[in-house]
Amino acid sequence: MSDPGFAQWQARELARIEAMLTQALAAQDPQDLMAAMRHAVLDGGKRLRPLLVLATAQAVWGARASVPDWADGLALRAACAVELIHAYSLVHDDMPCMDNDVLRRGKPTVHVAFGEATALLAGDALQTLAFELLAPQADPAEPTVALACVSVLAKASGHVGMAGGQAIDLASVGQLIDASRLKRMHDLKTGALLRASVAMGAICAQCAPQERAALSAWGDALGYAFQVVDDILDVTSTTDVLGKTAGKDEAHDKPTVVSTLGLEGAKALAQTLHQQAHAALGQLTLAPGHHLGTITDWVIHRIN
Amino acid sequence: MSDPGFAQWQARELARIEAMLTQALAAQDPQDLMAAMRHAVLDGGKRLRPLLVLATAQAVWGARASVPDWADGLALRAACAVELIHAYSLVHDDMPCMDNDVLRRGKPTVHVAFGEATALLAGDALQTLAFELLAPQADPAEPTVALACVSVLAKASGHVGMAGGQAIDLASVGQLIDASRLKRMHDLKTGALLRASVAMGAICAQCAPQERAALSAWGDALGYAFQVVDDILDVTSTTDVLGKTAGKDEAHDKPTVVSTLGLEGAKALAQTLHQQAHAALGQLTLAPGHHLGTITDWVIHRIN
Repeated sequence: MSDPGFAQWQARELARIEAMLTQALAAQDPQDLMAAMRHAVLDGGKRLRPLLVLATAQAVWGARASVPDWADGLALRAACAVELIHAYSLVHDDMPCMDNDVLRRGKPTVHVAFGEATALLAGDALQTLAFELLAPQADPAEPTVALACVSVLAKASGHVGMAGGQAIDLASVGQLIDASRLKRMHDLKTGALLRASVAMGAICAQCAPQERAALSAWGDALGYAFQVVDDILDVTSTTDVLGKTAGKDEAHDKPTVVSTLGLEGAKALAQTLHQQAHAALGQLTLAPGHHLGTITDWVIHRIN
Repeated sequence: MSDPGFAQWQARELARIEAMLTQALAAQDPQDLMAAMRHAVLDGGKRLRPLLVLATAQAVWGARASVPDWADGLALRAACAVELIHAYSLVHDDMPCMDNDVLRRGKPTVHVAFGEATALLAGDALQTLAFELLAPQADPAEPTVALACVSVLAKASGHVGMAGGQAIDLASVGQLIDASRLKRMHDLKTGALLRASVAMGAICAQCAPQERAALSAWGDALGYAFQVVDDILDVTSTTDVLGKTAGKDEAHDKPTVVSTLGLEGAKALAQTLHQQAHAALGQLTLAPGHHLGTITDWVIHRIN
């Protein structure tokens, strides 16, 4: 798919995301806590989730005459909020009592750099900051939309979402689980936050119910595809390219799509999901020059 | 202060709080995670923070003709939300990398009962659930008020609130710190959430700015008094009476009001704050039969 404007769009949106995250984490006191939070969030990561929020909202908006400033601002805050949730989950996931990992985004993990207690608190405070970001309000029309984002992000992050998926992951170590249980774990652990990114973009764009349903189908396929590719990369890539420890699923005896379906089966599933995602986009009337197709291809063909 | 209706009011409100918390934690899957979350929250605790939310809102409402159902419902959800934040902070605070405590609310701590990884996830998911509780909406007037509660609770919980206070606490172990630094630590670590409870009650009651300012002054005095009494009880009470390990501040070489001012100095400070709290209440026109004075006395004279 040809999308000559993508690189420019991505650079512009990444600059807005980095600026807001940097500002949100600017406080100096308490020194260690703030330094640990910045270490976890800034200068790293693909920012896939925030880009999903913004690309989704803009793909719907593109066809409209004008976008209110508050809605664009809220979409940017929602984008940064989901990245903060993702970052907190990585900090806690890397801790010794969980995956005990030392490398993340090409840097020492937070507990290695700042100690376990500070890593625990930094993860906690990053989660809080995500919800704080969604709360300011500039327009009388905004609270209903912002509160809908709080609801979507909380459900996607908690016991019926990401944290629930991590608990299933924890209980599955060394277990033989079938493909459907594995899909449920991935649906929650990784899929929930990716789906929430698409949903928050759709909410900020205040799109119609049938648009939201089609975008949701796209998010479902994309979220699952992301995890399948993650499992494939864990066995086919290197620690250098990934920026995190390669081969750790097998080392931790964790069930993955590759351990369940084999490498070729996992690659075939990724292709099927790729087609499903594009088919879902085909049902939508989106702005010319939107980037959802390009993002779909990026998720499938990424190397880290 | 005579308040014959207090015990009955407390029993009725506690029943509403327990019912909502029980319902919010009713899910069975993932089994370990949900059991750990229930262990941390149900059947224990004074529920001071939720009672503060409800008592504050009702003290303002009492003088009015009618209270909308959504506002009463939101106050109850805010009450449970602040208790979930408090509960998550205890789970994480008790973990081996923090205070490494084995007893809480008269029961084994969550990491002792369920393991460290599940305790970490349970704390994370309890925080998320707090924000999820604030997000549903039943009335068009509600989102603005609910989002204001999200903002207050997030600020009080994060790096400029409770988590920030814990980070200062962590950095202060074994240090000589002066009374003003100690007060700042307490302001954040314990005071922020107590003040947020009062603030959310005032927000749900949609009270006037001058009422909110006086309630805020009450919350300031009450929050600090609570921590001073906590520090006193840590040296004067027993593990059995407290339901948590007594004497642990000294064992961990932590600066406290008692280590800074001495036991008699701490008791004198508690009395001063007690008077300041009642003076703040004296500036308000509250409903006859309100319970804010009784709660003030309870915070000062409590034995655990």
